[in-house]
Amino acid sequence: MDRITLGHGSGGRQMHKLIDSLFLKAFSNPILNQKRDSAVLNIGNKKIAFTTDSYVVDPIFFPGGDIGSLAIYGTVNDLSVCGARALYISVGAVIEEGLDGSVLERIVRSMAEAAKKAGVRIVTGDTKVVEKGSCDRIFINTSGIGEVYYEGLSTDKIAPGDSVIVSGPVGDHAISVLSKREGIEFGTIVRSDSAPLDKLIWKVLRSSKKVRFMRDPTRGGLATTLNEIALGAKSGIAIEERDVPVRPPVRQACELLGLDPLYLACEGRVIIIAAKEDGPRILKTLGADKAGRGAKIIGSVTGDRSARVYLNTIAGGKRIIDMLSGEQLPRIC
Amino acid sequence: MDRITLGHGSGGRQMHKLIDSLFLKAFSNPILNQKRDSAVLNIGNKKIAFTTDSYVVDPIFFPGGDIGSLAIYGTVNDLSVCGARALYISVGAVIEEGLDGSVLERIVRSMAEAAKKAGVRIVTGDTKVVEKGSCDRIFINTSGIGEVYYEGLSTDKIAPGDSVIVSGPVGDHAISVLSKREGIEFGTIVRSDSAPLDKLIWKVLRSSKKVRFMRDPTRGGLATTLNEIALGAKSGIAIEERDVPVRPPVRQACELLGLDPLYLACEGRVIIIAAKEDGPRILKTLGADKAGRGAKIIGSVTGDRSARVYLNTIAGGKRIIDMLSGEQLPRIC
Repeated sequence: MDRITLGHGSGGRQMHKLIDSLFLKAFSNPILNQKRDSAVLNIGNKKIAFTTDSYVVDPIFFPGGDIGSLAIYGTVNDLSVCGARALYISVGAVIEEGLDGSVLERIVRSMAEAAKKAGVRIVTGDTKVVEKGSCDRIFINTSGIGEVYYEGLSTDKIAPGDSVIVSGPVGDHAISVLSKREGIEFGTIVRSDSAPLDKLIWKVLRSSKKVRFMRDPTRGGLATTLNEIALGAKSGIAIEERDVPVRPPVRQACELLGLDPLYLACEGRVIIIAAKEDGPRILKTLGADKAGRGAKIIGSVTGDRSARVYLNTIAGGKRIIDMLSGEQLPRIC
Repeated sequence: MDRITLGHGSGGRQMHKLIDSLFLKAFSNPILNQKRDSAVLNIGNKKIAFTTDSYVVDPIFFPGGDIGSLAIYGTVNDLSVCGARALYISVGAVIEEGLDGSVLERIVRSMAEAAKKAGVRIVTGDTKVVEKGSCDRIFINTSGIGEVYYEGLSTDKIAPGDSVIVSGPVGDHAISVLSKREGIEFGTIVRSDSAPLDKLIWKVLRSSKKVRFMRDPTRGGLATTLNEIALGAKSGIAIEERDVPVRPPVRQACELLGLDPLYLACEGRVIIIAAKEDGPRILKTLGADKAGRGAKIIGSVTGDRSARVYLNTIAGGKRIIDMLSGEQLPRIC
């Protein structure tokens, strides 16, 4: 194996290859091999979801959020998209020697507020400090446990004709972090969409019994997540470029920087695959909640077995959109 | 609050102060406030234990172990000392750009073997890559879930006269890592004691119903862990210097480097507080297992309410041994 590159952490093709060829091979077991956002485990008479994420976002504070709230919401969301109610969270912090105590305090307070907002309890933790220069300020791992309240979300359930829904505009998080990091302004300050999705998803699952699968489009963005879903479902997905919601300042930033909004990380959005007949109802449920404002049906599952994602462009063309390859924006979460 | 120092990650006094004054205050809830190695949670009809640890050991390979197996065993042990059978583990890796792929492969293989040895399944994971210079090769977080099979281990149960038992010689891990890092040899190569304690602890809990409490003396060593226990029990503890098992090369290294073996991290040892009458039986159980060879009764719980740890020295003196203050050895785990 070659040297590790930033692309191996991008959420895109190289990361999937690394995970498949190294981690899944070495650790192989039926639960891990499902490759879900959370592992689903049987504990006594309950099904619980278990997930982990490390956060290395740079900068640690950005418009609309910070590494602390991001770490809480990200893990809550990974549980939520598996139909689980997030209950307990662990926090593991690796801190660089010399970090200002007030910075740590601000992050910890933000985590506490985020946990309160998402209704989870931080029940265990660990703190390590490394020498100056051995890490970049602070990295935070959060692992979470949730109780599965809605079973049966699976890419296996996805059928031709199903609708593809996104819960709001894409790319706000990535542009927020990028603009803060690079000191670029795009007229309007773009705020991260970082938010807990637990209540929104609960409402959606209450309003429709025909939701097949959900995933939050974080690293690698909408395009990469749709590719993961298409691969899992062994089915094509077609989306309409004109229907993908992108805020004007995000679009403008993408044009200036040569970025594709389809590959930008979101931290408060969910992609929902559901039966076509339930699409309008789900859209209504989403739109009635602040967290789901701007939701759109952006496409559908095709009948073909290509496992490809097709984009019908505004200009009338059709092109395959692949997983993110290489690294578009490092340390976005 | 001042800047973060290496002492804040030492496992000793500053770390406890940081945890109490910042994390416990901000995140306060009855489960976290118990300050156990694992949080104990009620899930349906089961009690489960949940724990997290980040590993930043330097070097990543050392005699007797590596960061991968250490990360698995450490989390298995944190569950085991709470009377839980480790079942599921999550792995979150933060990798420095440029890390040699073969190094990552070796670590991952070691984790897989360690998981097999300890009978746990790695069920979920996350990989982040940061730019060269933003972390030191690799940091690994493992979080673990276990099923509590033995309830009632608590510092509240500790009573005057109880025996203090250590399952084997102390300090091997710290000296192993230190000698490798600094390129020092002490005649004999000291191998880390890093090992899973699950089976050993299970045997102990099966052999005696009078075990009060257990904790593994990692960062901060035997002295710091005993202080934590004394504080929890609100009772003094007295130990006999002559009875604390320390291997000759570890003692020799300590003399050369001015280190106190009582403060050296172990990664495969457990401190057991149990009723005096069960001490010999527990010692026999420990000694019959390879992982418990060299176990000793090193002292007892005193009747006083000082919450202090006293050392009766070989020379016939008596001194208070406090928690580790400052940083004796950074990045030991």
